[in-house]
Amino acid sequence: MARTGRRPGTSSSREEILAAARSRFATDGYDGATIRGIAASAGVDPGLVRHYFGSKEHLFVESMEFPVDPAVMVKQLIGPGLDGAGERLVRFFLETWDAPDAPFVALLRSVTTNEQAAEMLRQFLTREVVGRVAASLDLDRPELRASLAASHLVGLAFVRYVVRLEPVASADRETLVAQVGPTIQRYFTADDGPWQ
Amino acid sequence: MARTGRRPGTSSSREEILAAARSRFATDGYDGATIRGIAASAGVDPGLVRHYFGSKEHLFVESMEFPVDPAVMVKQLIGPGLDGAGERLVRFFLETWDAPDAPFVALLRSVTTNEQAAEMLRQFLTREVVGRVAASLDLDRPELRASLAASHLVGLAFVRYVVRLEPVASADRETLVAQVGPTIQRYFTADDGPWQ
Repeated sequence: MARTGRRPGTSSSREEILAAARSRFATDGYDGATIRGIAASAGVDPGLVRHYFGSKEHLFVESMEFPVDPAVMVKQLIGPGLDGAGERLVRFFLETWDAPDAPFVALLRSVTTNEQAAEMLRQFLTREVVGRVAASLDLDRPELRASLAASHLVGLAFVRYVVRLEPVASADRETLVAQVGPTIQRYFTADDGPWQ
Repeated sequence: MARTGRRPGTSSSREEILAAARSRFATDGYDGATIRGIAASAGVDPGLVRHYFGSKEHLFVESMEFPVDPAVMVKQLIGPGLDGAGERLVRFFLETWDAPDAPFVALLRSVTTNEQAAEMLRQFLTREVVGRVAASLDLDRPELRASLAASHLVGLAFVRYVVRLEPVASADRETLVAQVGPTIQRYFTADDGPWQ
């Protein structure tokens, strides 16, 4: 890794990079922020940011304490092929958010109270989630398919964790996987009915 | 309408009833609040509350500026039978929230920042929306069916109006009706696959 005379990495520079990232993502949006700009804000070399966090996408996930890394998620889900991807996606999503300290409510709160947060999330989801999933779909209107699937999952989480509407709130995970998985699967692979 | 010696209704008593209702719903929850208690808080006769607002459900809808009256919605949707109810529901829901001043973001914000608001919404949706729709469904697990349908619609609204994720944010209404309607319909009427 190149050294430029700036101070070498310490555990506190990792925290400073995360703080700088949160600030730059909020100011510049997900698309506008760059590893170089975040490194400059933190007073470190861009190589150190890449050393700790790899990609901008992963830095965003870490800085927002986002519990899902879409790069990992999409690879696990779509990698084995589209068969069963709907159920795998619902199971992965619920396993992540069912964790007792998952910051789903905090994330929703910041998005509904802060226009910058909504814009940042929009850019991130567009590029890293909808974009990746859509690229794996072989049918017409892949972005519409991917974003409708996303809308169902977000709503499922809202009803389960925020409003806690029964019986969804207490349903065991595999019940929801069995019921919602095929719906997501149809968004990914149906080419009959309205998708013709 | 009975007169009890309290002051007769004026346009300001209507506003006072709404203010008292907001306060009692927040304090006592949707289930715990009563027309009698709200009337007492407002210093009016319960008959006046019923005269202005009819039912507790309608008073809640008005006091929260909730853009949908579930009693009206469910009747329009399910009244003609379950055939096509999925598409009718998606169309009605989007027509309501597409209105430029629909307070969807404000509603979500209060639910994510305020535990009382979440509890109030939970009780209201359970009794007036999921309960009513489930009562119209003739198959196993009607509450699960109704609440999964609700979760998709809530998520659709979140993605369209709050995150404004494309292409859902700009899709014309009938495109979404055509794509999401059949999904909702399956939750209402499918009895194959996972619903066996």
